[in-house]
Amino acid sequence: MQAAPGDGAEWLDAVAWNGDGLVPVIAQEADSGQVLMLAWMNRDALRRTVELGEAVYWSRSRGRLWHKGETSGHVQHVEEVRLDCDGDALLLTVRQAGGIACHTGRHRCFFQRLDGVSGGWESVEPVLKAPEAIYGE
Amino acid sequence: MQAAPGDGAEWLDAVAWNGDGLVPVIAQEADSGQVLMLAWMNRDALRRTVELGEAVYWSRSRGRLWHKGETSGHVQHVEEVRLDCDGDALLLTVRQAGGIACHTGRHRCFFQRLDGVSGGWESVEPVLKAPEAIYGE
Repeated sequence: MQAAPGDGAEWLDAVAWNGDGLVPVIAQEADSGQVLMLAWMNRDALRRTVELGEAVYWSRSRGRLWHKGETSGHVQHVEEVRLDCDGDALLLTVRQAGGIACHTGRHRCFFQRLDGVSGGWESVEPVLKAPEAIYGE
Repeated sequence: MQAAPGDGAEWLDAVAWNGDGLVPVIAQEADSGQVLMLAWMNRDALRRTVELGEAVYWSRSRGRLWHKGETSGHVQHVEEVRLDCDGDALLLTVRQAGGIACHTGRHRCFFQRLDGVSGGWESVEPVLKAPEAIYGE
């Protein structure tokens, strides 16, 4: 008998959830290989992600499940889920709808680069769409 | 006057350290684009990483700074450091000495892939070098 992930709990038990029941999750873009963002999942978020085939995170600021793209339409289609050696980090391979992962309207959240000359963080990725246009005023 | 990162504290203050004074750090391989691992840094670890040009993490299990490769020789040469939109995650672009990032002797720590058919995690990356040969018996 074959069991789809979600039927059983074993694959969820293999994750080393932290004291808050969360695990950090890296979203990497399938085609470009770019790391888009880091977010968090709880057990329910991971199960729903796998069932839905779209990234569902746990929003620590809002204290609830967050189906990414629920407002913006910028969902992440999940192609692969990986767990690391210690079981305490996940890696998703995703296709990013709209080409925008960041709430600032940028392609990715990692847009600040440390500059060795100025000694500060410099924004090095353009805003593709104004947040007001994504989320409304 | 130019200030190298490390001289001042402003760039370190920009990081949203968590309650334990840590931030999650993704190490991505420069050439392949593969995500090698996720680890943690405190303020001192990040400053030393930038000064040294090699990844220095905070080992949560050992409760001390961990200059990656100090035992194995598998240091990570850091080419770029990025901070995300909320300031609570870092992304390093690295060159992995020895081609082995994982303490299991694999290229990367994310070697367990969720299999939709079996419903479990499957190891999909080979051990390149036995841990005993890396760390000694």
